[in-house]
Amino acid sequence: MAEAFLKNAWYCAGWRDDVGLGQKDLVARRIAGESLLLYRTAEGGLVAMEDRCPHRSAPLSLGRKEGDAVRCMYHGMLFGPDGACRHVPGMDKIPPGADVPTYAVCEKDGWIWVWMGDPASADRTLICDAYDPHDPTLTLRTNSIRIDTNYRQEIANLADLSHISWVHDETFGGTDRWGYIRPRHSRNPRGIETKYVVRNIPAPRFAKHLFPADARFDIQVHVRLSVPCNFILNFRIHQADGETSGDARGKVLLDTYTSQAVTPRDENSLDYYFSWGTSKETEFPGVVDLMYRTNYEAFLEDKRILEGQRQRQLEYPGAPEIDIVHDAGPAQMLWVLDKLLAEESGAGAAA
Amino acid sequence: MAEAFLKNAWYCAGWRDDVGLGQKDLVARRIAGESLLLYRTAEGGLVAMEDRCPHRSAPLSLGRKEGDAVRCMYHGMLFGPDGACRHVPGMDKIPPGADVPTYAVCEKDGWIWVWMGDPASADRTLICDAYDPHDPTLTLRTNSIRIDTNYRQEIANLADLSHISWVHDETFGGTDRWGYIRPRHSRNPRGIETKYVVRNIPAPRFAKHLFPADARFDIQVHVRLSVPCNFILNFRIHQADGETSGDARGKVLLDTYTSQAVTPRDENSLDYYFSWGTSKETEFPGVVDLMYRTNYEAFLEDKRILEGQRQRQLEYPGAPEIDIVHDAGPAQMLWVLDKLLAEESGAGAAA
Amino acid sequence: MAEAFLKNAWYCAGWRDDVGLGQKDLVARRIAGESLLLYRTAEGGLVAMEDRCPHRSAPLSLGRKEGDAVRCMYHGMLFGPDGACRHVPGMDKIPPGADVPTYAVCEKDGWIWVWMGDPASADRTLICDAYDPHDPTLTLRTNSIRIDTNYRQEIANLADLSHISWVHDETFGGTDRWGYIRPRHSRNPRGIETKYVVRNIPAPRFAKHLFPADARFDIQVHVRLSVPCNFILNFRIHQADGETSGDARGKVLLDTYTSQAVTPRDENSLDYYFSWGTSKETEFPGVVDLMYRTNYEAFLEDKRILEGQRQRQLEYPGAPEIDIVHDAGPAQMLWVLDKLLAEESGAGAAA
Repeated sequence: MAEAFLKNAWYCAGWRDDVGLGQKDLVARRIAGESLLLYRTAEGGLVAMEDRCPHRSAPLSLGRKEGDAVRCMYHGMLFGPDGACRHVPGMDKIPPGADVPTYAVCEKDGWIWVWMGDPASADRTLICDAYDPHDPTLTLRTNSIRIDTNYRQEIANLADLSHISWVHDETFGGTDRWGYIRPRHSRNPRGIETKYVVRNIPAPRFAKHLFPADARFDIQVHVRLSVPCNFILNFRIHQADGETSGDARGKVLLDTYTSQAVTPRDENSLDYYFSWGTSKETEFPGVVDLMYRTNYEAFLEDKRILEGQRQRQLEYPGAPEIDIVHDAGPAQMLWVLDKLLAEESGAGAAA
Repeated sequence: MAEAFLKNAWYCAGWRDDVGLGQKDLVARRIAGESLLLYRTAEGGLVAMEDRCPHRSAPLSLGRKEGDAVRCMYHGMLFGPDGACRHVPGMDKIPPGADVPTYAVCEKDGWIWVWMGDPASADRTLICDAYDPHDPTLTLRTNSIRIDTNYRQEIANLADLSHISWVHDETFGGTDRWGYIRPRHSRNPRGIETKYVVRNIPAPRFAKHLFPADARFDIQVHVRLSVPCNFILNFRIHQADGETSGDARGKVLLDTYTSQAVTPRDENSLDYYFSWGTSKETEFPGVVDLMYRTNYEAFLEDKRILEGQRQRQLEYPGAPEIDIVHDAGPAQMLWVLDKLLAEESGAGAAA
Repeated sequence: MAEAFLKNAWYCAGWRDDVGLGQKDLVARRIAGESLLLYRTAEGGLVAMEDRCPHRSAPLSLGRKEGDAVRCMYHGMLFGPDGACRHVPGMDKIPPGADVPTYAVCEKDGWIWVWMGDPASADRTLICDAYDPHDPTLTLRTNSIRIDTNYRQEIANLADLSHISWVHDETFGGTDRWGYIRPRHSRNPRGIETKYVVRNIPAPRFAKHLFPADARFDIQVHVRLSVPCNFILNFRIHQADGETSGDARGKVLLDTYTSQAVTPRDENSLDYYFSWGTSKETEFPGVVDLMYRTNYEAFLEDKRILEGQRQRQLEYPGAPEIDIVHDAGPAQMLWVLDKLLAEESGAGAAA
């Protein structure tokens, strides 16, 4: 049977600034069922290793940085950034097996990424493209929350934006139009990409006070989703052009960008790293604050429905679930995930 | 093996006013291992259905009332009060299987009752009689608490009032006389009924300040217990008549009434709905307040001993427990329960 | 397979004053997977019995002391200090089996000790010697904390003081010298004993302000460890004598004493009872307060590393752990424990 998590994939381990340069900056993360220590060397290079001393399993994240190395503060064993044990106090030789497994780790677009498979096979071209909070043409705010559900439910949530009409009715919604869109998804080896326009809708609830009551808008949507669960979205809000098909052609009122990376801790819990904001070109005073606050509220709306769903699924194990038209995106995305999981499983079996 | 819970029984789902008429009044309940949504139509009719959308298991109680229907606020599916799916946004046809199981539900004596078996077999004559808080001849206060124990222990608690002398020594007790009563129980198909007099006892602790220290009382007790765990009690407090047998014949000082319905959530937890008060005829200023406060304290006394008991039973699984004379009531009540459970189990096996 | 806990051993159940003489002093303890009630008779004698009524498993610790007996406050059964049921309200005869198992219990050196095996085989000579907080030649402070780990990890912690250099770097440490000591342990039937000198070290962190920066000290260490997990320690702090071997011969600056008893509640949690202080002869104003505060902080340091370790061990079940030179003490101590466990297991099998 396939494992719950892909090994050969990059998982987001947080925002660039989550791991600092200070002596105390030893960051513990739980990713895809494994416990990791993250830290930076004096030069700023990232190190990721198993957060477990090979001697008696003490967390290295409770240890002490010493130059580019980390010392376990239970019995003083010292490990280099390659995981190799450099010293055991009181011993002349390093005992065999005293090394800590390491992970390939790097930064891209403001995020820290960890490859959970064999570091030798880590392929940086597989890291998803995202909107960088440090991009000078954008103004983005960042944060993270924890949601107690399985990441497959989060994939399904993100691959079907019809839920904006319902889950986010009081924040980003305010119209049922999202619930009637049937977008076409184009599939690629590690995800799906989707483009469409939601036409002639009133301002979303959070922005109603900014526009006349009868103002109508077209929203040009561009979504890129990739495994394990990265969601890169551009909403471009246009004045409604009165057309019924084709790209939105009305005046661009606001061009908004969000990057969202979902990292499973284990089968019941995940970390959600997100940014939201606008292009500098279309930004106006207060709009990024407003969007950030709205977005945070919207994530709490997702958290509530996802955790409720998880609870029912645990209460009714094996209960049948029917499919509807909006499951096309989730189904394609989970198909990609399951295909990759099966390939890893087969490769493992063959090896 | 028999199931833990009766299906063919009415379970109390709360007080009449727990489920309001407002747009937001979607009430979630856990009853006998199932998750239920309760709401009222605009006309006030009660609806009870599984609190799980058949699409992706989101709780319908996180949804939205629309007229007599409820909309799942994950993907917008709309369900009528009969559980039938009326609409899936973006689809012309309702997919097969898109219905939500419903439960027979009704009101009686101020309580809401749900039949957990096949609604077609729901028999309203099986709902226990209780004292209605809206009865104009009574003044009753109501509330509920949660107790983390198995409901069989709660049955045993209620079917043997000798515990008043010990568990409730500081509230309703104040004499060990309850501990020596050996009442006769008469059995009926769904429970037991018990009548006796506790004679020549001092005022209960909570009411000592109302009477001379040497005042003595007879308490005429009438208990009706029915499955799953409904406890309907009348305590009539008389001036002691000096007799040693027969009904109490002294002057009636206070005629008190309580209805208590215990609804298991699951095997480890239950909801306890209760009222307490007096007849208007014997009520005097302050007495119902005093009784209500005392009663709430007494339920916390029960909660403490029952949860302690549950903890020990989980720590010592299978440890022998001896029987004493006061187990006659509990044994008869559990015998009735087990007989009905076995019948359902047999009926299930035969079918 | 051997059990997790020794039966034929004395476990510390707390400090002498934890169990008072008052009517309400019914103390519940969880020891080695069993639930105990502790109380004192009017004469001050200690009683230890299973904290479970044989009738319906209610905790006797929620009961009431009556003279030298305890009454279960669920249905009023009364038990003498020998566990024998004396009375069941409403019954003339005591039903068979209505007795509560008791434990051998006594006091020694300020601690209460319980023998978890057959009381008839309780051998008081097996209680470890400790420093008594009531000893007129000592000034000791006492307290207790809870640590959520398996007691075997606590044994390993206490049998290897090299961790002082790392875990306690900011309290008792301040030098890596502890991490290089390779002491010889002498084994006895129920534990190990260890003596050595840590030479020519600066003042420990907590006491640096009391001495010139270049002051150097020798610490004469004497540890006695016994099953299940009792740790009796004397640190004698001398002016450094400049020697490299033999006992410390410099002037004694402070002679400190600590007794620590670790009692497993179950496989995941333990209670830790400890004292710390000095001889009256070497005490100076404020030093015992300072040591006590430091010691409490140090126990929180241990708690943090031990609970982190436990978490990793549960996350990575069966993951290999390598051995280092400092495991000699832990290995000997766990060897003694496992030998005794195997003997009990074999005796049980033979019987």
